Amino acid sequence: MSKVLIVMGSQSDFDVVKKAADMLSKLSIDYTIRVISAHRTPAAAAEVASNAQKDGYSAIIAAAGKAAHLGGVLAAYTVLPVIGIPIKSSFMDGMDSLLSMVQMPKGIPVATVAVDGAENAAILAAQMIALSDEGLRVKLEEYKESMARDVEKQDKAVNELISK
Amino acid sequence: MSKVLIVMGSQSDFDVVKKAADMLSKLSIDYTIRVISAHRTPAAAAEVASNAQKDGYSAIIAAAGKAAHLGGVLAAYTVLPVIGIPIKSSFMDGMDSLLSMVQMPKGIPVATVAVDGAENAAILAAQMIALSDEGLRVKLEEYKESMARDVEKQDKAVNELISK
Amino acid sequence: MSKVLIVMGSQSDFDVVKKAADMLSKLSIDYTIRVISAHRTPAAAAEVASNAQKDGYSAIIAAAGKAAHLGGVLAAYTVLPVIGIPIKSSFMDGMDSLLSMVQMPKGIPVATVAVDGAENAAILAAQMIALSDEGLRVKLEEYKESMARDVEKQDKAVNELISK
Amino acid sequence: MSKVLIVMGSQSDFDVVKKAADMLSKLSIDYTIRVISAHRTPAAAAEVASNAQKDGYSAIIAAAGKAAHLGGVLAAYTVLPVIGIPIKSSFMDGMDSLLSMVQMPKGIPVATVAVDGAENAAILAAQMIALSDEGLRVKLEEYKESMARDVEKQDKAVNELISK
Amino acid sequence: MSKVLIVMGSQSDFDVVKKAADMLSKLSIDYTIRVISAHRTPAAAAEVASNAQKDGYSAIIAAAGKAAHLGGVLAAYTVLPVIGIPIKSSFMDGMDSLLSMVQMPKGIPVATVAVDGAENAAILAAQMIALSDEGLRVKLEEYKESMARDVEKQDKAVNELISK
Amino acid sequence: MSKVLIVMGSQSDFDVVKKAADMLSKLSIDYTIRVISAHRTPAAAAEVASNAQKDGYSAIIAAAGKAAHLGGVLAAYTVLPVIGIPIKSSFMDGMDSLLSMVQMPKGIPVATVAVDGAENAAILAAQMIALSDEGLRVKLEEYKESMARDVEKQDKAVNELISK
Amino acid sequence: MSKVLIVMGSQSDFDVVKKAADMLSKLSIDYTIRVISAHRTPAAAAEVASNAQKDGYSAIIAAAGKAAHLGGVLAAYTVLPVIGIPIKSSFMDGMDSLLSMVQMPKGIPVATVAVDGAENAAILAAQMIALSDEGLRVKLEEYKESMARDVEKQDKAVNELISK
Amino acid sequence: MSKVLIVMGSQSDFDVVKKAADMLSKLSIDYTIRVISAHRTPAAAAEVASNAQKDGYSAIIAAAGKAAHLGGVLAAYTVLPVIGIPIKSSFMDGMDSLLSMVQMPKGIPVATVAVDGAENAAILAAQMIALSDEGLRVKLEEYKESMARDVEKQDKAVNELISK
Repeated sequence: MSKVLIVMGSQSDFDVVKKAADMLSKLSIDYTIRVISAHRTPAAAAEVASNAQKDGYSAIIAAAGKAAHLGGVLAAYTVLPVIGIPIKSSFMDGMDSLLSMVQMPKGIPVATVAVDGAENAAILAAQMIALSDEGLRVKLEEYKESMARDVEKQDKAVNELISK
Repeated sequence: MSKVLIVMGSQSDFDVVKKAADMLSKLSIDYTIRVISAHRTPAAAAEVASNAQKDGYSAIIAAAGKAAHLGGVLAAYTVLPVIGIPIKSSFMDGMDSLLSMVQMPKGIPVATVAVDGAENAAILAAQMIALSDEGLRVKLEEYKESMARDVEKQDKAVNELISK
Repeated sequence: MSKVLIVMGSQSDFDVVKKAADMLSKLSIDYTIRVISAHRTPAAAAEVASNAQKDGYSAIIAAAGKAAHLGGVLAAYTVLPVIGIPIKSSFMDGMDSLLSMVQMPKGIPVATVAVDGAENAAILAAQMIALSDEGLRVKLEEYKESMARDVEKQDKAVNELISK
Repeated sequence: MSKVLIVMGSQSDFDVVKKAADMLSKLSIDYTIRVISAHRTPAAAAEVASNAQKDGYSAIIAAAGKAAHLGGVLAAYTVLPVIGIPIKSSFMDGMDSLLSMVQMPKGIPVATVAVDGAENAAILAAQMIALSDEGLRVKLEEYKESMARDVEKQDKAVNELISK
Repeated sequence: MSKVLIVMGSQSDFDVVKKAADMLSKLSIDYTIRVISAHRTPAAAAEVASNAQKDGYSAIIAAAGKAAHLGGVLAAYTVLPVIGIPIKSSFMDGMDSLLSMVQMPKGIPVATVAVDGAENAAILAAQMIALSDEGLRVKLEEYKESMARDVEKQDKAVNELISK
Repeated sequence: MSKVLIVMGSQSDFDVVKKAADMLSKLSIDYTIRVISAHRTPAAAAEVASNAQKDGYSAIIAAAGKAAHLGGVLAAYTVLPVIGIPIKSSFMDGMDSLLSMVQMPKGIPVATVAVDGAENAAILAAQMIALSDEGLRVKLEEYKESMARDVEKQDKAVNELISK
Repeated sequence: MSKVLIVMGSQSDFDVVKKAADMLSKLSIDYTIRVISAHRTPAAAAEVASNAQKDGYSAIIAAAGKAAHLGGVLAAYTVLPVIGIPIKSSFMDGMDSLLSMVQMPKGIPVATVAVDGAENAAILAAQMIALSDEGLRVKLEEYKESMARDVEKQDKAVNELISK
Repeated sequence: MSKVLIVMGSQSDFDVVKKAADMLSKLSIDYTIRVISAHRTPAAAAEVASNAQKDGYSAIIAAAGKAAHLGGVLAAYTVLPVIGIPIKSSFMDGMDSLLSMVQMPKGIPVATVAVDGAENAAILAAQMIALSDEGLRVKLEEYKESMARDVEKQDKAVNELISK
């Protein structure tokens, strides 16, 4: 069964990362959450990424802020897809995190989502796993449907607000 | 057999997109290239994305510049993973393209790579396909190895330059 | 009678959009407000925009944040003028929304106003309608006059503050 | 018959502005081109804008770079819609021009298009005029169609390139 | 006797502008404060600037936010030095105000100070007047001295804090 | 007789600074040009600024790029008005130079003009001197007039171009 | 015995600077804290930097915000390593401070750390001193170890949170 | 004898890095140049940094562009001071490289110099080594002197240019 490895650079990123975990749960995808720092525990980062594929992970989600090297450092040690969540830092709303993640050099991609875009990181991981998991694909289509329903509800709600 | 759909917003993006196609070829992955505009041929965009999964594609690579809506517009119609290449525009080196691609709202991710990062878009697509294709995974590992060899060659070359 | 279609990407944009609606009301222009998402309900977006002209709308106001594709997606399906309100996002005060809206490619304009500039979107729509509506033009001139009066009042108020 | 007033801040903006004029010609819309500076000939700017409506203009297109006040200065004297083209300056590719144009205060909108987006300024003006000009609306729809045809040609061209 | 004309675009800028007025008072320089909008009361702006020199003003301080055209609009009508205070807007901390003020075209300078740098606008005006006012120059030197004294006090205060 | 001290941080800034010198010449204002570095010859910078007033200068123009401290360093040692020209650097078109100059702390203003805006620095200096020099004020008014004439010529030239 | 000179531009920077001081204390390195302004007490800045080496300091840490010239001004007078802490200003989260510090011209480096990165400034100073102080190097290695232990604790804490 | 380890992420950075090497040579400091990629040869990066101190290096200079993780990755494995040179990339003149380097998290500093500021990286390394090398300190003072002489020559050169 497919599972996703979620790594964050610091426990302070947990509130954002939690939303990725919750989305994976909602899609019935197993995950492991780790706090591993590219700079403070680099050996752990190297080891975890090196073993991720044989440990049965299908994708790695890396969340980090500021000089957000974590995604790149993990991607250096694996050919699993690595998805990066730039954490909103206290500097220009995470422009530093975003550029540190997305501007990876040729050969070592980090699939970057929006700043603090944790749910989308989870959905992206699910989309990858769904390539060989028909059931999950259906779940993703249902989730897409539910989002459409939700927008339609908002549409009604706003019109009721207006017509009052 | 897995294949990738590459869509660009304008023929002028071809030089960048070509590098994604070449990388896919190198990894023996089939692909189709299309010029489809989110704004000029929106119906075609909707149709192609809606059908991509049943047409046998595993991933979509979308390349676009400026208000680079293409990735988002395709992602709106499919649960296949959509990978975005922000094309370097004539405005702030593609900051507009990058933000238009990466800052997608909750629920509809676009896996964004570096500005003009076409090879990485292809590698990311390959990493996704490799989740259920052992042979491709080995190819990706070999490519990773070859990059390491290349850096080692550069290391030697520079030291020869210096020692002269 | 002329009317304006206001579309927002999410109910969370309502507080900003409300100011456009109020300005239209003040100028006695009819409007419809819709919540339609470029990414979550793309078919609805396509349909609404395709029909807007024959449904009697004179202009479309699109409000969206982050990767604010809504204006462009609507403009793709109509030749009505589309006015974009970039919503202030949590990233660089809406720089992402602004660039995603204003940097449209050749052929498909989105008339962009300031970030959160909802009143100006409404006034712009009114200015367009006023091209063939003398009464509305007079109303716009009166509104302009009233703004001047208001500045003059501020001028007095400040001088009273100072002279105390 | 409707006509458009095009104003640029300096003759050096002519190459960009020319594209707006050519697009208007293509759509059979009359126009006048003026070089008027918000700062060097402010009285002329005030006069031209004050008279634009009674001189029979339906819209004003203002092109300016750097501290691009021209659009705002013209809009201060008229209730005609003013469309702003931020000219690409030698500073951050026209970020200064863009912000100076788009960030207008409440009450005085400038409908801003992309940096150097002259064709779109013309199309926007045409869309406004077309609200009461059926023939022009058809022309705009034909132009939209022709853009779609052009993208389809590019699509073919690229596939021929690839299949070689 | 020399005096300074302070113009702000909106009463909402008063809190910042007040600091310029207070600094002028401290330096015994007379001033007039006006609320005049470049866009809402453009004729008043033109008139006030045109008459400023013969009305006995030595310098104009213009405070405005967003598309902060006020400084440029006043400078268009006078050869008095115009000092611009970019007001911190809700967009990128006033980057829009700053660029709209400082990036003036050749021929029409606006002497720009820091975002919300009202005291410095006043000091700059004083430095200009002091060119022909020995007494004021001495006052400026004393103010400079007092700032040095203040830093020295801070230096002591911090060392007392530390040594506790 | 009034004169202006022009200081640049490096000879490489000469091409820009030359335009300030030429403008001063045109306005018959004397000037001295110096190459003094805030960082490489700090004592010279301190000395020159300390003596500028008693050496008969009315204003200092400081041109520098990158971490453009020169204006601030000179302003620290004088109460003469210091005008800063941010030189266009190889980083973000001089955004570093601009912010280093304009964002001066309270008490020590640097009157900043546009990036590479050397002519405006000279005009600003002239405007300051003209406060007590009627003849120079007339010259500035004539220059202003000549700019207006020049725009009018451009206006004609463009209309001749168009009508061909 | 080695010691570090910490200089801040204003007492208001104390809260940030305090963290550098605390880190130095933790590593048993002596320090002096001074409030000296590059612009308000330039002579003191010159003197302190000129004497720093013979006064027995091994490194200077300079903390300043906005047009943060302090680091450069000190570096101009010494060959001791100068470490710059860009203080988070009220403008773009300290982008002005960062660029004013890091973009120093050739010949006069300021070793810049992250915005408000006071602890890292202290660690950097310690790393320099440790080049000839074995005991301090061991302390730095222990601190590095302790950071790793801390990350491991966070890792456990998060997993306990999740498993609840 | 002290020596410096220079690491660059790619041979393409050599032209910039060469200037650091030349400056070290000028100051008679030994160095080793290596091409090691944080992402393509991460194990080599880890090994080289881990051994740098016992291999006799006093400082590490890391040059990298885009998502410039190299400095951080090396710093993760050593307590030697790591100096970062952000290489000017094709995106916003290296804003990505700069932020990826300078915004390091607490505990792991990278002493960042200007974009492409290779000479300053070398001087900084020299300043660190000079803390326990009197001869080198004198050399740095002589270099500082020579820069002052050079500025004085430029000063003369410009005045000769002007007086012609």
